[in-house]
Amino acid sequence: MNTTYFFAALDRQRVETPSWGYGNSGTRFKTFAAPGAARDVREKIEDASEVHRLTGIAPSVALHIPWDEVDDYTQLRAFAEDRGVTLGAINPNVFQDDAYKLGSIAHPDAGVRAKALDHLLGCVEIMKQTGSRDLSLWFADGTNYAGQDDLRARKRRVREALRQVHDALPEGARMLVEYKLFEPAFYATDLFDWGAAYAHCLAVGSKAQVLVDLGHHAQSVNIEQIVAFLLDEGRLGGFHFNARRYADDDLIVGTTNPFELFCIYAELVAAERSGDDVTRATAQNVAYMIDQSHNIEPKVEAMLQSVLNCQEAYAKALLIDFDRLADAQTAGDVLEAHRTLTDAFRTDVRPRLAEWRRARNLPEDPIQAHRASGYQEKVARERGLAVAGGGFPVKS
Amino acid sequence: MNTTYFFAALDRQRVETPSWGYGNSGTRFKTFAAPGAARDVREKIEDASEVHRLTGIAPSVALHIPWDEVDDYTQLRAFAEDRGVTLGAINPNVFQDDAYKLGSIAHPDAGVRAKALDHLLGCVEIMKQTGSRDLSLWFADGTNYAGQDDLRARKRRVREALRQVHDALPEGARMLVEYKLFEPAFYATDLFDWGAAYAHCLAVGSKAQVLVDLGHHAQSVNIEQIVAFLLDEGRLGGFHFNARRYADDDLIVGTTNPFELFCIYAELVAAERSGDDVTRATAQNVAYMIDQSHNIEPKVEAMLQSVLNCQEAYAKALLIDFDRLADAQTAGDVLEAHRTLTDAFRTDVRPRLAEWRRARNLPEDPIQAHRASGYQEKVARERGLAVAGGGFPVKS
Amino acid sequence: MNTTYFFAALDRQRVETPSWGYGNSGTRFKTFAAPGAARDVREKIEDASEVHRLTGIAPSVALHIPWDEVDDYTQLRAFAEDRGVTLGAINPNVFQDDAYKLGSIAHPDAGVRAKALDHLLGCVEIMKQTGSRDLSLWFADGTNYAGQDDLRARKRRVREALRQVHDALPEGARMLVEYKLFEPAFYATDLFDWGAAYAHCLAVGSKAQVLVDLGHHAQSVNIEQIVAFLLDEGRLGGFHFNARRYADDDLIVGTTNPFELFCIYAELVAAERSGDDVTRATAQNVAYMIDQSHNIEPKVEAMLQSVLNCQEAYAKALLIDFDRLADAQTAGDVLEAHRTLTDAFRTDVRPRLAEWRRARNLPEDPIQAHRASGYQEKVARERGLAVAGGGFPVKS
Amino acid sequence: MNTTYFFAALDRQRVETPSWGYGNSGTRFKTFAAPGAARDVREKIEDASEVHRLTGIAPSVALHIPWDEVDDYTQLRAFAEDRGVTLGAINPNVFQDDAYKLGSIAHPDAGVRAKALDHLLGCVEIMKQTGSRDLSLWFADGTNYAGQDDLRARKRRVREALRQVHDALPEGARMLVEYKLFEPAFYATDLFDWGAAYAHCLAVGSKAQVLVDLGHHAQSVNIEQIVAFLLDEGRLGGFHFNARRYADDDLIVGTTNPFELFCIYAELVAAERSGDDVTRATAQNVAYMIDQSHNIEPKVEAMLQSVLNCQEAYAKALLIDFDRLADAQTAGDVLEAHRTLTDAFRTDVRPRLAEWRRARNLPEDPIQAHRASGYQEKVARERGLAVAGGGFPVKS
Repeated sequence: MNTTYFFAALDRQRVETPSWGYGNSGTRFKTFAAPGAARDVREKIEDASEVHRLTGIAPSVALHIPWDEVDDYTQLRAFAEDRGVTLGAINPNVFQDDAYKLGSIAHPDAGVRAKALDHLLGCVEIMKQTGSRDLSLWFADGTNYAGQDDLRARKRRVREALRQVHDALPEGARMLVEYKLFEPAFYATDLFDWGAAYAHCLAVGSKAQVLVDLGHHAQSVNIEQIVAFLLDEGRLGGFHFNARRYADDDLIVGTTNPFELFCIYAELVAAERSGDDVTRATAQNVAYMIDQSHNIEPKVEAMLQSVLNCQEAYAKALLIDFDRLADAQTAGDVLEAHRTLTDAFRTDVRPRLAEWRRARNLPEDPIQAHRASGYQEKVARERGLAVAGGGFPVKS
Repeated sequence: MNTTYFFAALDRQRVETPSWGYGNSGTRFKTFAAPGAARDVREKIEDASEVHRLTGIAPSVALHIPWDEVDDYTQLRAFAEDRGVTLGAINPNVFQDDAYKLGSIAHPDAGVRAKALDHLLGCVEIMKQTGSRDLSLWFADGTNYAGQDDLRARKRRVREALRQVHDALPEGARMLVEYKLFEPAFYATDLFDWGAAYAHCLAVGSKAQVLVDLGHHAQSVNIEQIVAFLLDEGRLGGFHFNARRYADDDLIVGTTNPFELFCIYAELVAAERSGDDVTRATAQNVAYMIDQSHNIEPKVEAMLQSVLNCQEAYAKALLIDFDRLADAQTAGDVLEAHRTLTDAFRTDVRPRLAEWRRARNLPEDPIQAHRASGYQEKVARERGLAVAGGGFPVKS
Repeated sequence: MNTTYFFAALDRQRVETPSWGYGNSGTRFKTFAAPGAARDVREKIEDASEVHRLTGIAPSVALHIPWDEVDDYTQLRAFAEDRGVTLGAINPNVFQDDAYKLGSIAHPDAGVRAKALDHLLGCVEIMKQTGSRDLSLWFADGTNYAGQDDLRARKRRVREALRQVHDALPEGARMLVEYKLFEPAFYATDLFDWGAAYAHCLAVGSKAQVLVDLGHHAQSVNIEQIVAFLLDEGRLGGFHFNARRYADDDLIVGTTNPFELFCIYAELVAAERSGDDVTRATAQNVAYMIDQSHNIEPKVEAMLQSVLNCQEAYAKALLIDFDRLADAQTAGDVLEAHRTLTDAFRTDVRPRLAEWRRARNLPEDPIQAHRASGYQEKVARERGLAVAGGGFPVKS
Repeated sequence: MNTTYFFAALDRQRVETPSWGYGNSGTRFKTFAAPGAARDVREKIEDASEVHRLTGIAPSVALHIPWDEVDDYTQLRAFAEDRGVTLGAINPNVFQDDAYKLGSIAHPDAGVRAKALDHLLGCVEIMKQTGSRDLSLWFADGTNYAGQDDLRARKRRVREALRQVHDALPEGARMLVEYKLFEPAFYATDLFDWGAAYAHCLAVGSKAQVLVDLGHHAQSVNIEQIVAFLLDEGRLGGFHFNARRYADDDLIVGTTNPFELFCIYAELVAAERSGDDVTRATAQNVAYMIDQSHNIEPKVEAMLQSVLNCQEAYAKALLIDFDRLADAQTAGDVLEAHRTLTDAFRTDVRPRLAEWRRARNLPEDPIQAHRASGYQEKVARERGLAVAGGGFPVKS
């Protein structure tokens, strides 16, 4: 592995952190308030800035509207840029208003659909002010019982809304269509898998791309294969990184099956080097975003760990000997091909990453640096414990 | 099928409804406030009483402490009995206090464990006042990351707490030990499956029984086989009924796979008729309890539907021709044996259930009667919309 | 429910049985030889004819090449028609030749791919002689280890082969592209889900349609939603019916979750009545085919049961009150909508089906008629026990 | 990490290879004959000996009866010992005789049960001649359809047979009771999970221990937690190592999720160091056995890779800083505890293992040594291609 190439690739890596990952979050049973959890969008941006300061590869922060709603996004953008980060993807929220009990863009009532569409189009306007390239679309829409609503009719309503949003996007902007197997819907989710998202994207236009959230698949589904398929079709728009073993557990990416994360990055690195123009361009434009809920972890440290896990997986993927791999694959040498891949995974890249950080004036061990910095103690002192809720009542 | 036997069996059926099923509940994303959702334990008891009035088979209501905490349980008991229902299982809550972020009875800190044990023993005292037979124990304890805590040490802490609770139980009382694959813990749940619960029950004593919640298993697990196994071992204490397709979806029991619910009841009816004393006695003492979260459904109607789905499944199981079944099984006649079971399932028992209701002065169609009664409109008017939260923030 | 409409719909129902369902089959551990299992294609056709004679709705039999290879397909067609059945879908086999160890149309070696394509094109020729409309394509292609082969390269090879087969199809013919989560490939299957099959079909042309095998999905996937999606896109070509709880168990359709089968038929009946021309035409051309392995069941009885289970599910779906359903859906009346669906499922359609059979001069109880006919005893006597193997050796 | 301790631990590691892993095997669809696959028990022993020669940690080979049946086991034992290996666990086979179509020890017919018991007791006799400590028991018993047989009756039949085998075991011998979620049974498997196996073991006596096969669990089940639970109860007898993503895929251990294998070894290493006598003794007596089907891989190389993957996982587990881990766990420092574990996993142990091999006069790279040795070419030449079948017929 040529160090220049390796370092140059590491320099290009970008991982966007989510504003909501710095605030309190929980399960339906309980939200445990974290000391120092960010209470508003400015505090979230400060935390994101700290993560970027320590890692050097997390230069943008995704916003969630209306959680991060402000009167003046130009001002917010300046606030972020003053702290060394930019505003990233805009994430509309059409699942928390009381009107959305039975859905938003797939709701049987046209009035509710119009309300949801209005919010989505409002987010497109926000993009223009924040300078965001991507509108990141997740819909909680679905049903809990067989028969509750007409599945085909809902599909058509989804298509119609996606088309309108697509057509409202400014030049150069994209919409990333996320899918999810289930939750909060428990019978049928309208955007239930990559195939559904892909079919809608194809239908509505070239600015629509599929977003892969690592926690949104059925058990045992091969995610790197979906990634490879979408790369080849030119329709992979981005990731929501996290980890899971059971449902959409939203744990720190890379903690439950680091080999899976490596295999996903292996597909991406291979695509970046592909001779096919569409595949290569698609890979180069993938938006890498974290989407997690840190329910018991310290917020900033958890985000640091997430970013570093992505870096480590990417670094290992860079070490793959693709020529040796292709030779073994062509020869049908099953185990040699597999070993070529795992040789890269087995390599301990921590020394090389420390070297890269030294060369970039970054702390060699960002976690250690964070722990030593007093940042967590400072925000805990200044921000205190925010009020936190949860799906179930505390006391009747 | 002899009508006398059939009606007598239906007369014996009991399904306990949970107080928390009448209040608001939601997912981590949002709790949609339901019009007229019960705001306190007395309103919950009134709703439970309405369900019993219409069905005749839901004569008790489970309490959740501290959600249903009152100063005087004797008074609460009288309040319930005045409305035709009794107080059922006591459900302690050791997952919502801020101290329980890393567990309760399995927590690494002895002080937290003592606090949790204290609450459990307090609930044993409440049982004496409410006249409850069963202490229903669910623990959210677990870890989110490999290495987070020592799995064997946690197991031993759980055992110790269960032993102490067991030994504090009054004569004739039982503790029902619930297990769950995951949620809110996403790496390891301390009471992770029936085997874990069973091993603990065996170790702590004869008052400990396993509680089966239909939503707490891994995909494809055969629940009726676990039921049969536990019945044969004399360790099946009760059920938490609900339905799911994905995770612990907590939908209305019988809605996702009614055949599975029927197969579970088939094991129970067979065990009630067993020649083995332990099996028969165990079956006769099973506590049938509903445990659901109605996130988008009207609360009382959803509970009515749940109770009726249990009745229908049980009625079908009563129709099984066990002699024909045994003959086919003995002969190794695979398809004839299967058909004997499904012949009962395929039978439409609604006319017979209507007949039974008429004979018991119950409304023939309890759902219709409820809809016509104006009860929902009345509570919506009187109680209004309770404040509801959710795991994620509404606005920073 | 209008009896004329109901009977007319039942008259239109068609379920194709598979030739391979009448021969011996087993698991990798053992194939238990069934007495009287069909030994060649003619015996299979005789069995299929018996199933049709008793049910009236199984008028065609699918062929598997080369298992059912003959010198003269015109003669075979006459043989079948003499027995009241026609030859149905042609199923190529590109997974049993030793050349296919690492794949067929996705194999890294061009020579192997050419061999596989040659077989597929040969099957297109057979279709012309058998008068088959559908070429039913299942590929075992995939890999067992990460890195074993290039996922994107394999995808392109699959696309190329599908395109060539598509373009060779005669006018009016279709290719049905089947997908499968796993088995026999255990890391990545090239046609891994409906989305992959759909994307290929879109790309290769209008004669390509997706085939849904009920046993080929990940746990908890909502199959009726995939069916609805494909119907709406005009790309649902057919079904392989069977039942499963775990993997691709290939049990008798409708035995593990009859409600799921009903929900699938509910989507199909709704689509048949749709005002959208594409959806309605697609529904009317769906090929309903059984694909099962009867490892411990008597072959003919198992197939009878399968056909009857499809009939029962379809009959129940016909009983759905779609007007009441639409009203409840539009009103957002979640439980009333669900009950409208389940009211049809709960209905015992056996008496009406018996009536329909009487009116069509069919035995009222085809299973009973089969058992009384002596057919099984006759073929057991005449055909004896065929030699059967299994994936593992019997003796070293 | 002290090298002396590390090397001493590596010296103690033992991984038993299975005779059947050296012969042909396949899926129900096809068995691809591998060049040079062992044709009889002596060739299997020779292959096992080659694996031991190259790795130094695979000194025994498990036998499968009747696949490896010989007239004189004393002679076979000498044959093995001459080649540097011993005969390991005896694996009875009560699933391939035609009598076992509906089960063996759980069969409804007493005659079949007696036949199966007779075989099991015969295997106990073989153990005495081979010098085997462990009888490894896997039962294919189960049912494919609800109602097919009486689940409680089957459980009692299983218990009775296990008791009789247990009581026939010689002093010092053990029976390892394996469980499996499904396959070849598709509705209910009699020994369906660890809890069922554990309950039977407890009931029949102290020589009965649970055997954990890594491929036999439902999706998402936490295997290392089961391992920890059984270690703490003193009932973990051994492992069948392999890897899977979907069902019981029987791939090379450690290939689908190497972190999971590491976590399992972490529990074992921790238990070996435990202060609790029962836990420590149990850990020290665990039988580590491979049980895989190499369908597309070269047999000997695949087994080498399997043994080496176990060595690597164990070596990493030895590197865990248990003091730092305990401190973080006690302090509730979630992420530091997790990092302590993953720091060991992230370490590249290949250089240290090469050093250990050099010190033991073993080839530094056993795979490379095997490839260079000409062994595979030699056996391919000498043994040729054995006849291989598959669950489905090749040609009617």
